[in-house]
Amino acid sequence: MSNVRYGIIGIGNMGSAHAKSLQAGEIKGAVVTAVCDGFESKREWAKEHLQGVAVFEDSMAMIDSGLVDAVIVATPHYDHPSEAIRAFGKGMHVLIEKPAGVYVKQVREMNEAAALSGKKFGIVYNQRMNPLYQKLRELVRSGELGEIRRTNWIITNWYRPQAYYDSGTWRATWGGEGGGVLINQCPHQLDLWQWTIGMMPSRIRAFCQMGKHRNIEVENDVTAYAEYANGATGVFITATSEAPGTNRLEVSGDRGKIVIEDGQMTFWRLRESETEFNKRNTSAFGKPECWKFEVPDQGSSPEHTGIIQNFTDAVLRGAELVAPGEEGIDGLTISNAMHLSTWLDGWVDLPFDENLHEAELNKRIAESTFQKTAPAGNSQAADLSGTF
Amino acid sequence: MSNVRYGIIGIGNMGSAHAKSLQAGEIKGAVVTAVCDGFESKREWAKEHLQGVAVFEDSMAMIDSGLVDAVIVATPHYDHPSEAIRAFGKGMHVLIEKPAGVYVKQVREMNEAAALSGKKFGIVYNQRMNPLYQKLRELVRSGELGEIRRTNWIITNWYRPQAYYDSGTWRATWGGEGGGVLINQCPHQLDLWQWTIGMMPSRIRAFCQMGKHRNIEVENDVTAYAEYANGATGVFITATSEAPGTNRLEVSGDRGKIVIEDGQMTFWRLRESETEFNKRNTSAFGKPECWKFEVPDQGSSPEHTGIIQNFTDAVLRGAELVAPGEEGIDGLTISNAMHLSTWLDGWVDLPFDENLHEAELNKRIAESTFQKTAPAGNSQAADLSGTF
Repeated sequence: MSNVRYGIIGIGNMGSAHAKSLQAGEIKGAVVTAVCDGFESKREWAKEHLQGVAVFEDSMAMIDSGLVDAVIVATPHYDHPSEAIRAFGKGMHVLIEKPAGVYVKQVREMNEAAALSGKKFGIVYNQRMNPLYQKLRELVRSGELGEIRRTNWIITNWYRPQAYYDSGTWRATWGGEGGGVLINQCPHQLDLWQWTIGMMPSRIRAFCQMGKHRNIEVENDVTAYAEYANGATGVFITATSEAPGTNRLEVSGDRGKIVIEDGQMTFWRLRESETEFNKRNTSAFGKPECWKFEVPDQGSSPEHTGIIQNFTDAVLRGAELVAPGEEGIDGLTISNAMHLSTWLDGWVDLPFDENLHEAELNKRIAESTFQKTAPAGNSQAADLSGTF
Repeated sequence: MSNVRYGIIGIGNMGSAHAKSLQAGEIKGAVVTAVCDGFESKREWAKEHLQGVAVFEDSMAMIDSGLVDAVIVATPHYDHPSEAIRAFGKGMHVLIEKPAGVYVKQVREMNEAAALSGKKFGIVYNQRMNPLYQKLRELVRSGELGEIRRTNWIITNWYRPQAYYDSGTWRATWGGEGGGVLINQCPHQLDLWQWTIGMMPSRIRAFCQMGKHRNIEVENDVTAYAEYANGATGVFITATSEAPGTNRLEVSGDRGKIVIEDGQMTFWRLRESETEFNKRNTSAFGKPECWKFEVPDQGSSPEHTGIIQNFTDAVLRGAELVAPGEEGIDGLTISNAMHLSTWLDGWVDLPFDENLHEAELNKRIAESTFQKTAPAGNSQAADLSGTF
């Protein structure tokens, strides 16, 4: 195979962006040969803007056409696993948009199908391409920061006005998206929260607030507390109704503290680990010596292009995936646990009871009576039907 | 009265500092005429270093001597209320060190005694003299920040090595101090957390960890989540075993966000309130216009000297107290609620059941089997017997 021939399932906001990027030749060794979408308006758009690309209504017809080696799944969240499972069944390599799905149980089934197929499986966790988070992960893995003691991510700059929520009737509903800020805006941070430090929480106590300053039924304001097996603790805070909001990640370890804020990483590094210092110190008010570093600019992030390039390289040459699809379950597990903790108003140990989570989610879908005002223009609503 | 004649009850770390400050003439209209302490070594120190000041073993004898108009209570935490109540009974004005006491029930009794006496009652919340926090309070009260939506205080720079905890057998024990970082190090921040924004939490869910990386029985690592009656939420995080730690207070409101960190205040101010913007905005990705200000340096804080001066002015001329003693109960209520939430592993609504809290605390005192290694030198242990 000299070129990976991509078919894109769902050409809303993200799918159409991927198609254009591929068609513009931004990915070496990759071409877009087909797209599919259930909406006629989307197919019309594709015929007009994607010259020489076959357009289908149905994903199975697209796959059966023999035109594609790999698919990018960019449908609404709920359909990611089912589309992926069907594609694996047809021998496709599969790259899915985030989130991996809406609930862990369906994602686990997708992971099993991927393993059975032996095909490449990736997820568009483009923030893993950001050199700042890669650097943090490297500093943790190399032991430079020492054993992790605390994490704190304030990611409240996901500002979304009511007009955003009114732009699609499926938006921010239990049936349409299966959640709010945790499912739609935060999957990247929920992934990076565990990927950078290499640890999943062992239990979570979360406080999701639904419809905070917004007329929606799902959560758009979350504070979550996490405990890890090594004794570390963490806090994750997000919101869509605050302006200007904050994006600040702090990670402290036995050898100091790292803060990523405003695209800059600062490292307060202890010359001696806190544990070692504490062991030998005899002064009641002694402190370990600490040096402050501005970690050099790590360069810009290739973002989506980088992820699709990496996936293409994996298909063509067996390159190691930066974001294996199987790992999509980790951030989603945290997200599901935050919902479940709020619903049960108590602790959730990880791994949690997936059937209980699914039942609780289905209860909210069944009880939903949410009716939104139709958006001002239908065309605008259609244009926004992506995953952000 | 031309000068307030102070008697100091307890001349450990803080009491001796106040005595020296008064004797050096740093407070206008105030003199120190007497001190008392149960430890002979302290009295010896006073006779040597405080020329012309009467030295007593017992606080009642000092008060009955007729030498003092007001007392400063700087004993171990547990005794603040009982000493204050006895002094009010003798017609004294009373200034107490923080914390107001160890549990709310005893502090409520002190407040009632103060009200009955009609005398001046203050608490050494010297951080209220810090112009940065005064400015924040002013910006909230004037409506400049709009209605409060979220608070977040990471105050993890209370580094205390094991040598600190080993310096006194009473330190960091339920019987000796009645708690750890919440009772000893954090009372200022717990007070400012509610004083600056003018709101107490309506309920608290806290996660106190006991003896984190330290051989002690009380909490030295705390994450607490708070909800307020107006719908706002808050997080308070503190620890004594992290280096270098962080001191960062973020408060967001309907008109922007204020961050105090490293002695600097930054104000991200919306030109229009978020609520108003959201009401009129029709763009799905619209955002309110925001300007970033560095709030000018507010000058240095007069700290303890400022508090004692203010109290003296209140006694002499009826000046308004910056830190009325009655308000000591607010920070302590938060602190007690954090303990109680941890002990019960659940929500604590404010105001909480004070008898339940007292019973739970007494249970821990009764069950305590904590034996510390004696410190290297007894004199060092004695020197450190203050409230920090």
